[in-house]
Amino acid sequence: MSFKQKKYLSNTPLADALHIYNEALKSSGICTPLPGERAAISDALGRVTSEAVIAKISSPFYHSAAMDGYAVKFIDTFGAAETRPKRLAVPAQAVAVDTGDPMPDGFDAVIMIEDVEKVPDGIEILKASTPWQHVRLVGEDIVATELIIPENHLLRPVDMAAMLASGHTTVMVRRRPAIAVIPTGTELVEPGSDLKRGDIIDFNSTMLSAMAAEFGAAPSKKKIVKDDASLLKQAILDAVAESDLVVINAGSSAGREDLTAPVIAELGKVFVHGVNIKPGKPVILAVVQGKPVIGIPGYPVSAALTFNLFVKPILYLLQGRIVPPTDTIMAKLSRQVASSLGQEEFVRVKLGSVSGNLIATPVTRGAGALMSLVRADGIIRIPAESEGIAGGHEVKVELLRRPQEIANTIVCIGSHDNALDVLGNFLNKQHSGFSLSSAHVGSMGGLLALKRGEAHLAGTHLLDEATGEYNVGAIKQYLPDRKIVLVNLVHRTQGFIVPKGNPKGIKGFEDLRRPDVVFVNRQAGAGTRLLTDLYLKRLGIDPNSVKGYHHEEFTHMAVAAAVVSGAADTGLAVLSAAQALNLDFVPVAQERYDLAVLAEYYETPMLQALLRIVREDRDFREQIVKMGGYDVTEMGRVIATL
Amino acid sequence: MSFKQKKYLSNTPLADALHIYNEALKSSGICTPLPGERAAISDALGRVTSEAVIAKISSPFYHSAAMDGYAVKFIDTFGAAETRPKRLAVPAQAVAVDTGDPMPDGFDAVIMIEDVEKVPDGIEILKASTPWQHVRLVGEDIVATELIIPENHLLRPVDMAAMLASGHTTVMVRRRPAIAVIPTGTELVEPGSDLKRGDIIDFNSTMLSAMAAEFGAAPSKKKIVKDDASLLKQAILDAVAESDLVVINAGSSAGREDLTAPVIAELGKVFVHGVNIKPGKPVILAVVQGKPVIGIPGYPVSAALTFNLFVKPILYLLQGRIVPPTDTIMAKLSRQVASSLGQEEFVRVKLGSVSGNLIATPVTRGAGALMSLVRADGIIRIPAESEGIAGGHEVKVELLRRPQEIANTIVCIGSHDNALDVLGNFLNKQHSGFSLSSAHVGSMGGLLALKRGEAHLAGTHLLDEATGEYNVGAIKQYLPDRKIVLVNLVHRTQGFIVPKGNPKGIKGFEDLRRPDVVFVNRQAGAGTRLLTDLYLKRLGIDPNSVKGYHHEEFTHMAVAAAVVSGAADTGLAVLSAAQALNLDFVPVAQERYDLAVLAEYYETPMLQALLRIVREDRDFREQIVKMGGYDVTEMGRVIATL
Repeated sequence: MSFKQKKYLSNTPLADALHIYNEALKSSGICTPLPGERAAISDALGRVTSEAVIAKISSPFYHSAAMDGYAVKFIDTFGAAETRPKRLAVPAQAVAVDTGDPMPDGFDAVIMIEDVEKVPDGIEILKASTPWQHVRLVGEDIVATELIIPENHLLRPVDMAAMLASGHTTVMVRRRPAIAVIPTGTELVEPGSDLKRGDIIDFNSTMLSAMAAEFGAAPSKKKIVKDDASLLKQAILDAVAESDLVVINAGSSAGREDLTAPVIAELGKVFVHGVNIKPGKPVILAVVQGKPVIGIPGYPVSAALTFNLFVKPILYLLQGRIVPPTDTIMAKLSRQVASSLGQEEFVRVKLGSVSGNLIATPVTRGAGALMSLVRADGIIRIPAESEGIAGGHEVKVELLRRPQEIANTIVCIGSHDNALDVLGNFLNKQHSGFSLSSAHVGSMGGLLALKRGEAHLAGTHLLDEATGEYNVGAIKQYLPDRKIVLVNLVHRTQGFIVPKGNPKGIKGFEDLRRPDVVFVNRQAGAGTRLLTDLYLKRLGIDPNSVKGYHHEEFTHMAVAAAVVSGAADTGLAVLSAAQALNLDFVPVAQERYDLAVLAEYYETPMLQALLRIVREDRDFREQIVKMGGYDVTEMGRVIATL
Repeated sequence: MSFKQKKYLSNTPLADALHIYNEALKSSGICTPLPGERAAISDALGRVTSEAVIAKISSPFYHSAAMDGYAVKFIDTFGAAETRPKRLAVPAQAVAVDTGDPMPDGFDAVIMIEDVEKVPDGIEILKASTPWQHVRLVGEDIVATELIIPENHLLRPVDMAAMLASGHTTVMVRRRPAIAVIPTGTELVEPGSDLKRGDIIDFNSTMLSAMAAEFGAAPSKKKIVKDDASLLKQAILDAVAESDLVVINAGSSAGREDLTAPVIAELGKVFVHGVNIKPGKPVILAVVQGKPVIGIPGYPVSAALTFNLFVKPILYLLQGRIVPPTDTIMAKLSRQVASSLGQEEFVRVKLGSVSGNLIATPVTRGAGALMSLVRADGIIRIPAESEGIAGGHEVKVELLRRPQEIANTIVCIGSHDNALDVLGNFLNKQHSGFSLSSAHVGSMGGLLALKRGEAHLAGTHLLDEATGEYNVGAIKQYLPDRKIVLVNLVHRTQGFIVPKGNPKGIKGFEDLRRPDVVFVNRQAGAGTRLLTDLYLKRLGIDPNSVKGYHHEEFTHMAVAAAVVSGAADTGLAVLSAAQALNLDFVPVAQERYDLAVLAEYYETPMLQALLRIVREDRDFREQIVKMGGYDVTEMGRVIATL
């Protein structure tokens, strides 16, 4: 198929897509909540009422004592005083009662046990009582026939108590919407399968099912359907027959193997195919046999986003619930975000509170970057009519985490090291309430993030060629206006990543001279690049004589990946990158990996909690040593205050 | 037992109680999360990790196409241009790939299908590609060995996806804490039992179990235990053996039948008995055989409050979770709240947004008033060292509902009528997002609430004796500075509530003259009181000649209750009060029941949604008529704009 025959998706704006589909659902009769079913109140937590609950009985349903003491007739107590105690006969004039006991007939007040003196055959009191004193009257809490819980109400524990107190044992609640999630794609395999190149683990259908469960629905995750029109057709028909809503993931685009749209079109009606959003464009909004059928794109970030936009509102509607508004917060954008004109874009951001300002920093925008969604604090929307938002602008952030959690999160941006992950985990382990969020943009990127006030600290390993000292020079040069406390985390081993068995017998930088050795380099500004350049210079090797010197990658892992793919024979990286891809590793240099902490946060409880682990936690230190490739002699030492 | 022998509870301040108990738990070894157990990731939603999750494999774990198109070697594409298309042979130089397909060995870029022209035996391209263009590299999303999810993390759908994508199918999660809830009390009966005077339905243990479930625990609601020390002892021992935490409800005070504390003291150690809070003072904090055992008071509001204060933190600790901070909001207190010096008080409030100010209005403070908790929007704390808070003061409100829900709630304060309940339910039914909250303080109380800006509207039926007109006179007199739109809801029948069969043969006001008829009156300011006084005046009856004229009650229901109890033979009220207590009703007068709406809110979407129901909804009108005692001829008519 050439670009002339290509099937294109439509570019329906989001609001239009929602409107068109809403109208389509209405005209298909999908516009009212599901019918109710009777549930035991004890099982009704989190369910939604399908009828108002009216009190059957009052609570209390008899006059009862509100205190421990004696029930009396208030008229009998007239005249009692401290100076003139009055004696009441038991049980003719006074009857012992405990809180909750019914009032004996004809008695209309309770005197607290503390105000009573026991005497033979009776009690003595020092004060007259008033009518109905310390008596809970019939219906004081709940009056029979009054409305206890309205229709379409999400039941809480206290609501359950009120319904039981008013004489009910069951309640009519909305049936949970049955939603089928059909994973499709010949390349998909169940989690836990033996993996071969080309396989894709089907994790989306578990995620979408869990989202549906969070929204109150009853999800049914179906078996994986291969890319075969008749199989897919049968799967959709089966699902439609037993569900209130069907989601198909994926095959929703317009490529060679994207069968979802044509198959749905055969079975029912497609109202929208292609929504003008990014990520998530290839959405299918359809109705088959009176049921909503929605095609969701395959990239996980697109899948989560479009499920929220298109499926969630229907699941709420079917339960008679209002979609609760997303919590939002205003934040300053840390840097410019460009966006395509004519497309509404959803950008994930990390939030950090810096000098009292909440700063939103955009993270990776790839639709396949699941971890960016795991780690995101919120999402900003860039309208279709905008080409982007300038740095420093106030933006509205739809929150994915609670503001308090965000405030208690230490933001670390910079060079990545696995020791940081371990550190973050120890912080969580101690449940201090603080957590560590780290983004990986290289050492120089980290220092620039500190400069812009986007992070509390940065992981950095920038060698100053002139002094041979790490980090100090770069911080002085790039952060003259910021006060920094530089704390060592580890010394670590850099080395050459080589295929298993080291087929080219690489031993050190000298081997990069060899014409049969292809190198893969790191980008300018990376600590590892500086290290490479320093060693080449020391050894008098002309960079231009190194094959592949100009092939730059941005991460340790990308270097390892280039070696795996055969694009290069070797590259410089840390041990863990070799371990991750099961490659061999030839150690060639030690380097210092420090944490550059903005001084203004150094004394805060959250940074101190982090540094306490670095300095005092023996388990932490042991675990780092066990990982291999690390020297922890200087761990936690303040290298410099700059 | 006299007041000299009375066992008293201690008055331990809340912070001290928490501290003492924390230390006690620590020294009993209850200070670390429960051990982990292995769970399928698909079942792990909402569980808490007990170990960090480290990626087993990278994602993608092979270089893959990021677009539908052709895999190429970028070197082969050199020189392609619009003016000079380059031809690539298939499959030697170009291989068709779909998004997600593995890159063929040796291929290092993808050209999008849109940029390709098919020709015999190959493709033509118009542009050179760059290395790794449109290729997802190994580990682009997840790098094997990296930390995916830290320990003590509450799992969300996206976390489940990330764990599956990184090669896991199971995850170590904290065991759910097993909590036993033991209801005790000879007066308790299971919900659904045939009720007799003195029975109390055990609704607390369902409420507390549901709260525990919301906090992530696995509750086990035990059978009701009678007030018998040996039965209670056995029940506690059984529960301790199989649970991580035991809650006993109630018997936690120091009265005759309060066995909980002495029984626990025999089995283990009581650290605190009596906390200086209101409500909720009679709390028992103890340890039995190394397990926390907590005695919770019996009044439902006390039970919910103390469960939150003392049980919730332990359930979170056992799961390795931080108790999420309660959302709070600042509001202006609408009126003074007095409080006992030396006791920390928790006061439920309703919130209303009036003229842009958030106003907090305290509601009933009784510990037995379950409905006040059902209807509350939040709670304010009055410190022990305070005697109360003055009206107009800013207070911090701990929210029980979401701010957005509160903003969309119409606050109605005033005279109660069951038609208001029905109206509120219709508003919910339509799921407009708006809801109606009504508090019952009588007609005059409602007008004063409007005057103070605490409500959007008030239900009112105040007869002007001079003019015979309802409400207009009172609004002019009491709300000269407020603009009001007065809308009729119903005309309703007032009548004499009499025991079943009307034994005294009461027919009208004239019967109040009879020496054998005891009347029960309403308080001054109630619409019903004005009606009574007007009729007595018209008939020339001297109020002082009416037996019971000075016995005042505050609600229709209290009047009905007085008749049930035999304290009075009759009283004036609406039909529903008679129906609620299964009494007879002798209609004597029609009155107009209006909604007085603050004009500034009249045009708001939420008030308009409410008024649309009143004016246009035939089902609503029908339901009101069916209830009996109502005339709906004027329903929705604007009576006056004042």
